[in-house]
Amino acid sequence: MRIPIDRDSEIPLYQQIETYIRQGILSGSIASGTRLPASRVLANDLGVNRITVENAYAELEADNLVHSKVGSGTYVMPSYPTPSLPKDVPGAPWPLWQQDLEASRGSRLSDELETQITSSRHPDLIRFDSGVGDSILFPVEEFRKILQAVLRRDGLLALEYGDPLGYAPLRSTIAHVLASQGLQTNPENILITAGSQQAITLAAQLLLKPGDAVIVESPTYARVLELLQTLQCRVVSIPVDDQGMQIDGLEILLQQHHPRLIYTIPNFQNPTGSCLSLNRRRHLLSLADRYNVPILEDDYVGDLRYEGHALPALKALDPGGRVIYVSTFSKMLMPGLRVGFLVADGPVQASLLHFKRMSDLATSNLAQRALESFVTVGRYQAHLHRACQLYRKRRDTMLRAIRGSLPAGVQVCPPQGGLFIWMRLPEGLENDQLLPLALAEGVSYAAGECFFNNRKGGAGFMRLNFAAQSPERIETGIRRLGKAMRRLRPFTAK
Amino acid sequence: MRIPIDRDSEIPLYQQIETYIRQGILSGSIASGTRLPASRVLANDLGVNRITVENAYAELEADNLVHSKVGSGTYVMPSYPTPSLPKDVPGAPWPLWQQDLEASRGSRLSDELETQITSSRHPDLIRFDSGVGDSILFPVEEFRKILQAVLRRDGLLALEYGDPLGYAPLRSTIAHVLASQGLQTNPENILITAGSQQAITLAAQLLLKPGDAVIVESPTYARVLELLQTLQCRVVSIPVDDQGMQIDGLEILLQQHHPRLIYTIPNFQNPTGSCLSLNRRRHLLSLADRYNVPILEDDYVGDLRYEGHALPALKALDPGGRVIYVSTFSKMLMPGLRVGFLVADGPVQASLLHFKRMSDLATSNLAQRALESFVTVGRYQAHLHRACQLYRKRRDTMLRAIRGSLPAGVQVCPPQGGLFIWMRLPEGLENDQLLPLALAEGVSYAAGECFFNNRKGGAGFMRLNFAAQSPERIETGIRRLGKAMRRLRPFTAK
Repeated sequence: MRIPIDRDSEIPLYQQIETYIRQGILSGSIASGTRLPASRVLANDLGVNRITVENAYAELEADNLVHSKVGSGTYVMPSYPTPSLPKDVPGAPWPLWQQDLEASRGSRLSDELETQITSSRHPDLIRFDSGVGDSILFPVEEFRKILQAVLRRDGLLALEYGDPLGYAPLRSTIAHVLASQGLQTNPENILITAGSQQAITLAAQLLLKPGDAVIVESPTYARVLELLQTLQCRVVSIPVDDQGMQIDGLEILLQQHHPRLIYTIPNFQNPTGSCLSLNRRRHLLSLADRYNVPILEDDYVGDLRYEGHALPALKALDPGGRVIYVSTFSKMLMPGLRVGFLVADGPVQASLLHFKRMSDLATSNLAQRALESFVTVGRYQAHLHRACQLYRKRRDTMLRAIRGSLPAGVQVCPPQGGLFIWMRLPEGLENDQLLPLALAEGVSYAAGECFFNNRKGGAGFMRLNFAAQSPERIETGIRRLGKAMRRLRPFTAK
Repeated sequence: MRIPIDRDSEIPLYQQIETYIRQGILSGSIASGTRLPASRVLANDLGVNRITVENAYAELEADNLVHSKVGSGTYVMPSYPTPSLPKDVPGAPWPLWQQDLEASRGSRLSDELETQITSSRHPDLIRFDSGVGDSILFPVEEFRKILQAVLRRDGLLALEYGDPLGYAPLRSTIAHVLASQGLQTNPENILITAGSQQAITLAAQLLLKPGDAVIVESPTYARVLELLQTLQCRVVSIPVDDQGMQIDGLEILLQQHHPRLIYTIPNFQNPTGSCLSLNRRRHLLSLADRYNVPILEDDYVGDLRYEGHALPALKALDPGGRVIYVSTFSKMLMPGLRVGFLVADGPVQASLLHFKRMSDLATSNLAQRALESFVTVGRYQAHLHRACQLYRKRRDTMLRAIRGSLPAGVQVCPPQGGLFIWMRLPEGLENDQLLPLALAEGVSYAAGECFFNNRKGGAGFMRLNFAAQSPERIETGIRRLGKAMRRLRPFTAK
């Protein structure tokens, strides 16, 4: 019996031995009926006194875990029965309530597509399907020093549950960053969340119940579509063009469906890349106000602008309490830190805070403090500038590669910012045939279906992330995509 | 006009000037109609070429933000109206949907009580109301080095979105820790969450809809009661005694209410400190199985045992898929890290994972990696040992202090582990009178009302956290509590 003992530990040796054996018995790795080594033998093996081993055995016997038979040895007693798991018993069913769950679980298309991609065996898959930027921009070294410094400066405070609204200095910094972008906020109206996904989920869970209608753009962010479907909401779609949501068609939908929420991505919309024009922003606010419908504004990547000028956020045009604004540092800076935020005013702010507290009692305090230390408005602007330079080049590289390597008949609308190019496939090409071929060639993309409530609407579209790959990889990947397309349609010119 | 410019920046000077003015205009801090400084004057002030300023003004004019009148100057144009916030306009209402929210929001008793406590002006408040242990046990220095090492070792990977189930090596470590406690699990059945609160919330949101009945102990953990109320569930209470939930009364409740979930805290129950006996554990599993009701087992502090021996977890007695097991590192180690986990097998595991992905797309990867590096079974055991030694002393100190300083007529049931002592007040004393007096004396506690579905049930009870204060503070705090009690009941002997 190999028992690891630590002579420098404060824990007495007999107790270390006892604990080791106890755990073995409780976990079943030392089976009942096993004869333990004679105390003299074990003591010799471990290099301890015999009395030490005997004390350990005595403690175990006092708890009926072992039994010493005089002249025979010390044996492990049978204890509570080890449950046999249904997996061990072929055909044993899960309880009914679990079977019902399985039946009612809708399919999760974006998960299935992701699985299809990640199970590709290609040794050098170039991935254009991801939803985030390139983490190479992130200054790991600098950030590591900051984490050190925060722990040194704040000690245990950094590891406590923090303010449920979020670390106050960080909320203040966010308010400054937003102000530099033209959005005036009060830090008390800012709620830090675990990424923008949590902010959106919080708002949805607070405001919606099964059967409620929600207005969304078509296409829109796949994860939010799935969230709404999971919450059993009625998704009411409104088409998007190169100026964003087609607001002309909104009023009739409001009248007919009485939605409880409008979800919109006004800047560099995911997946189309379009921006909602200023006129349409005003129009949207006016309609939402008249019909008493809250707006959830998802500004996850509004900073990443390569040309043109920023339009005011819907929140900046909000007379008060009409818009819940959501954003994140993930896409811009550091996904793994999982820090996002929402801005809301009015009673809804307290309700959102309450809901958040119920879910996880505050976002990681350490991450927030480190982020606050790292993000000054100046540093943020500088990082933004570097990101925009890098991503602009990559966008241009991808657009060139598309023109050069893909069949005529693809259509793209070059985005003014963000991470994605939204592409329409040539007539007759669809993802269910194309994606497997693309994966075989060694390139992945985000198939259009998961961005539409009615999936078929996306069969002829794809979303390509240009931000996460180097220019060389972009060119290679688009070439591979071209090959795959031509395998489907060899007679297509080029 | 004081415009901060950075000559070392990659951003051209004219653009810095333009951006600054643009933001001022967009945010309203430079009002429409303002006359900008003459380009010659501003150039002189800033120490730049006149043409630089003129370029900036030209860009702004191209966007209709300013207008140059020949011979007159450059003026800020009226742009979109600056929204006036309802706060600025006395009596301006929030939109109707917000007003409806406010009306339907139930009161959150534990928040109100917490506010009452935190607004105490006592200069030296001794707090017995908290729900966590003493973070002084946490080795900050060691952990800081580990964070450094993780960043150095894993670099950017540590900051990416991780595996949605949770960092695999950490799940493996958790499986080992659980095995050392007699609970065999497969790492693939472990889901890392942002603290145990998120695990409980996930399970509740997945399994429950408004109107569903849930069996809970009475009293039970306040935050879960509030969660269930927020989810509009019917809370069905079953009393607790010194052996935990009174299982004898369970079957009839199952028959009458057809609950969708049983929520139980079998070890060192929050707030009573009792443990569910082995017989009752088996009986509970048998009933839950027969009546097809999932059990949510909250083992948030089962490790902190000072005497007696551990009983097998319900999950260890689960033949398969009947129990969802939840635990956390927060109470034991480091609250701020916010890492907890659940163990579930069967289709419910995939459903829980999906729900978690929708909420926040994975718990902080950096925290998980650091935790994995930090937690070896040996180190965990050593930390546990230190914590138990410290907390046992403190428990004993508080029990002694209660006997010595509080009126006869209080009743406590000394807990065998955990963080809390549950105390019944003398006849006729109630929290709504006592708590303000206690706060005035400089001591806080957790008033019993928030642990009961029917609040009045808790008017004569309190929960005292003995773990988070030093022995001296415990003695002082209990003395203060005694003073407060005697102010209410001066004629009580002692």
